Amino acid sequence: MRTSQYLLSTQKETPAEAEIVSHQLMLRAGMIRKLASGLYTWLPTGLKVLNKVAAIVREEMDRAGGVEVLMPVVQPADLWEESGRWDEYGPELLRVKDRHKRDFVLGPTHEEVITSLVRNEINSYKQLPVNLYQVQTKFRDEVRPRFGVMRGREFTMKDAYSFHLTDDCLGSTYQKMYDAYTRMFERMGLEFRAVIADSGAIGGSVSHEFHVLADSGEDAIAFSSGGNFAANVEMAAVPAPAPQQPSGTASSFVSNAGGVEAVCESEGIAHDRAVKLVVVSTEDDQGEKGHAVLVLRRDHTLNQVKAEKLDNVALPLQIASDDAAAEILGMPLNFVNPLDCPLPVIVDHSAAALADFVCGGGEVNSVQINANWPQAITSVDIRNAQAGDPSPDGDGELTIKRGIEVGHIFQLGDKYSKAMNCGVLNESGKHETLTMGCYGIGVSRIVAAAIEQNHDKFGVIWPDPIAPFKVALIPMNMHKSQRIKDAAEAIYAQLTELGIEVLFDDRKERPGVMFNDMELIGIPHSIVVGERNLDNQQVEYKNRRSGEKQLLDVEAVAAFVQQV
Amino acid sequence: MRTSQYLLSTQKETPAEAEIVSHQLMLRAGMIRKLASGLYTWLPTGLKVLNKVAAIVREEMDRAGGVEVLMPVVQPADLWEESGRWDEYGPELLRVKDRHKRDFVLGPTHEEVITSLVRNEINSYKQLPVNLYQVQTKFRDEVRPRFGVMRGREFTMKDAYSFHLTDDCLGSTYQKMYDAYTRMFERMGLEFRAVIADSGAIGGSVSHEFHVLADSGEDAIAFSSGGNFAANVEMAAVPAPAPQQPSGTASSFVSNAGGVEAVCESEGIAHDRAVKLVVVSTEDDQGEKGHAVLVLRRDHTLNQVKAEKLDNVALPLQIASDDAAAEILGMPLNFVNPLDCPLPVIVDHSAAALADFVCGGGEVNSVQINANWPQAITSVDIRNAQAGDPSPDGDGELTIKRGIEVGHIFQLGDKYSKAMNCGVLNESGKHETLTMGCYGIGVSRIVAAAIEQNHDKFGVIWPDPIAPFKVALIPMNMHKSQRIKDAAEAIYAQLTELGIEVLFDDRKERPGVMFNDMELIGIPHSIVVGERNLDNQQVEYKNRRSGEKQLLDVEAVAAFVQQV
Repeated sequence: MRTSQYLLSTQKETPAEAEIVSHQLMLRAGMIRKLASGLYTWLPTGLKVLNKVAAIVREEMDRAGGVEVLMPVVQPADLWEESGRWDEYGPELLRVKDRHKRDFVLGPTHEEVITSLVRNEINSYKQLPVNLYQVQTKFRDEVRPRFGVMRGREFTMKDAYSFHLTDDCLGSTYQKMYDAYTRMFERMGLEFRAVIADSGAIGGSVSHEFHVLADSGEDAIAFSSGGNFAANVEMAAVPAPAPQQPSGTASSFVSNAGGVEAVCESEGIAHDRAVKLVVVSTEDDQGEKGHAVLVLRRDHTLNQVKAEKLDNVALPLQIASDDAAAEILGMPLNFVNPLDCPLPVIVDHSAAALADFVCGGGEVNSVQINANWPQAITSVDIRNAQAGDPSPDGDGELTIKRGIEVGHIFQLGDKYSKAMNCGVLNESGKHETLTMGCYGIGVSRIVAAAIEQNHDKFGVIWPDPIAPFKVALIPMNMHKSQRIKDAAEAIYAQLTELGIEVLFDDRKERPGVMFNDMELIGIPHSIVVGERNLDNQQVEYKNRRSGEKQLLDVEAVAAFVQQV
Repeated sequence: MRTSQYLLSTQKETPAEAEIVSHQLMLRAGMIRKLASGLYTWLPTGLKVLNKVAAIVREEMDRAGGVEVLMPVVQPADLWEESGRWDEYGPELLRVKDRHKRDFVLGPTHEEVITSLVRNEINSYKQLPVNLYQVQTKFRDEVRPRFGVMRGREFTMKDAYSFHLTDDCLGSTYQKMYDAYTRMFERMGLEFRAVIADSGAIGGSVSHEFHVLADSGEDAIAFSSGGNFAANVEMAAVPAPAPQQPSGTASSFVSNAGGVEAVCESEGIAHDRAVKLVVVSTEDDQGEKGHAVLVLRRDHTLNQVKAEKLDNVALPLQIASDDAAAEILGMPLNFVNPLDCPLPVIVDHSAAALADFVCGGGEVNSVQINANWPQAITSVDIRNAQAGDPSPDGDGELTIKRGIEVGHIFQLGDKYSKAMNCGVLNESGKHETLTMGCYGIGVSRIVAAAIEQNHDKFGVIWPDPIAPFKVALIPMNMHKSQRIKDAAEAIYAQLTELGIEVLFDDRKERPGVMFNDMELIGIPHSIVVGERNLDNQQVEYKNRRSGEKQLLDVEAVAAFVQQV
């Protein structure tokens, strides 16, 4: 491709609207343009990357036994009523009326459509299992679209749905998808991790997220140093530590205290030897509402996903504000004594393991020091794992890294197939409801995540497999020198002939402008054709990632490029 | 692909909902499924064809200098207000409000978005011309969606838009697109014609439609036997024929006549020697409304597109009913005499060329025979061309065929660029409005059109380049014979290794079921593995189109298939 026939659209200035580096660089490198909030046009350079990502996704889906279909963007509301999601789904679901005033939605996901398809098309266990996928435009009417295509409203997703007679069979396809996702991200040249995840609102039991690692990632991921454990921090179990032994020092109360923190400071006691309290709402089986107090070590943070799994905790989790908690307990939370509390007390493992700890004294301005739990205290896991915690699999310590979720696989079970009556006749001729898996990949999001992971101050640094072009061909002052032009044209012809994707910068621009643009776009390999090197029948090669330069004989360029 | 791992979904019965053969066969062959009125899911077999069509379209667009982008499906209303189409476009334009009550549309086409993009990205004549295209989902809220994907609401379209400083430059890109379209349809193996078309509501001057020829086509196309002229019948000019010479027989009036037709019958006069009248509404420059009488030869039909181009004719064309015409003229139209008429009379060339013709007699129940026009009559071209007419280019006679419009290219001019202020600085630094071309292809419609052209009573007959699979591999009773199984598996492995797309029917079905399914799906080449032929180390090859069968040595199968 010649830049003169291309829509390059690079920008020097960082657009003010873009908060994160991938959004900035996608705008600056001419990959996307905003049409409206959360709606982006993919310019040629962006689309090339998007298409490469999609091609790898398709190849690995096919290899893993997936069969591609294409479902409409616009879906009839009646299917959503059948599944119950017409009412459940919030305003992210864009609802539309057609000219006949019938209700439709713009599909944020396709469980209903695929389940309706399969219940019509598949009647016998002999046709199972089946794993149908599509690469399609989705729409989610995010309340605050941001970060460019990282959290847009219209985006490209690969979504796959598998249908099975048994959970064993589902497990086997799930594993194939896990492996296929692993191969996809490996092939894209991305550093990523599969982590145990919460299946959340989608339902089902087993679920893994695939994260591209990047410091700017929204999610925290816990890894074991042993290498076999990885989970979203919200899902990383924290084993109960061995209980500390009380020193025997008698407990005492500090009066006129500012609070637990102030006492720790003044007494020189570390924060990991004090506790803090959180008040949450409860509702028991009889519908009786109330509150409970959660107790954590002062240096730990509450894990809301874990807390929501506690018995009788009201869902979604409702944490009382400081004022509300003070009203409920009759004093500021800071002075409430967990050893003598009018509400039920639920203690985190690590807080329960403490001896000689600091806590509220049970009346205003009172703090207890050298407190100890009664012998028989039971505890639960309700805190976030943090770096240095022992790995739940017993193999080393946890490290925390940031990740961007780009894939999510679920064992859905029968949530949709039951609601929508999707089943087949089994071997004995009996009707059985199917069990489902679903497997999503944010195709457009991968492009942004790849940039978050691969960039420097000059621009994007594409991994070769998803680069918009493999080679940037930069002739210096070609419009003044026939010799440069001839040499560049010859190299271009040669590389193109070999099927290598080259961006040939034939603009009448200063070399500096060309270098900057090609670095900004992030093309992995550059060939610079200049007068001085041509005197020796040579051109300069530069590697975008390493910055390494070397001279190549003109006739060796093609072979070299094919090989890198 | 093995059928056991595929979603075959063939149907024996013709679905009642499908009126045309492509719709019937797409449902029966398991290519599409209806989700709601005008909304279809593409099943694997259909999607494979759709993707092949799209791939050929993309390759030829790239070859012709097109640069691919991807614009959102959901478009902000303000751009449509700028172009004026927010008000102009009828209820086919699906309007949507997002969660913040802002107006959007589901794009039926992307002129506004691309013009907005280009006015932001392109500032200098140096960046021109540019030809941007996409393959994207479109939505048109048809009042009566029908014929499956032939006239659906959601469909896949390739739309391209070119931008130029001069009309010459536009003309050159237009020709490139014309050539690219020609190559695309040739490569797809379709019989098609490019025809001169009416640019209609989209505006602009020059325009061609590309039609896939099929007896069921909605459009009539006129071709010259000389081979150089082809136009949509609505656009085919009909030259004035040489005037007939009056025989000198005196004109006379038949009274108590039933009408022109009855007199022709009773007098044995051919219908091409009689005229008929049509009353249309008129409105002159001063806004004065009235009527005019159009006169045609009785065997000809009025061409509404041509009639709308007459001076003072009210738009859109309003033809008076028989009752209304009788009221306006004081007698039934059948008796009105065009030679003595109170309204302005506009005569078609062919009617004007008549001598000794039959027409109304000027009073009720009177018909004139051997009528002749006065010497100085002027005439116009307002009829549809028909088979046997001389070609407008003077080269032979016209033939009429039916066609399905699958592509349309326009020289749009400045309709959008002017309304939306899209221009660049020219060489002298002056701002100039750009001139545009637009080039559409109905990608999903091509799939249906190809079937309308290529089918028989057994099913689809795919041209090789867009077939879902090249080869159907049909082992007979494989589940009972290890020898058959081994031979089929070996052939499957061999062909797959060569990159040939094979559908291996490994179902436990009777051979008849398999043959029927493979014929229905329309796979061009079949290899049947059976006991008897295997005794001679042979298999049977069958060509779907010709029905020709031949025996192949097992070891020669791969070479044979590669070559056909």
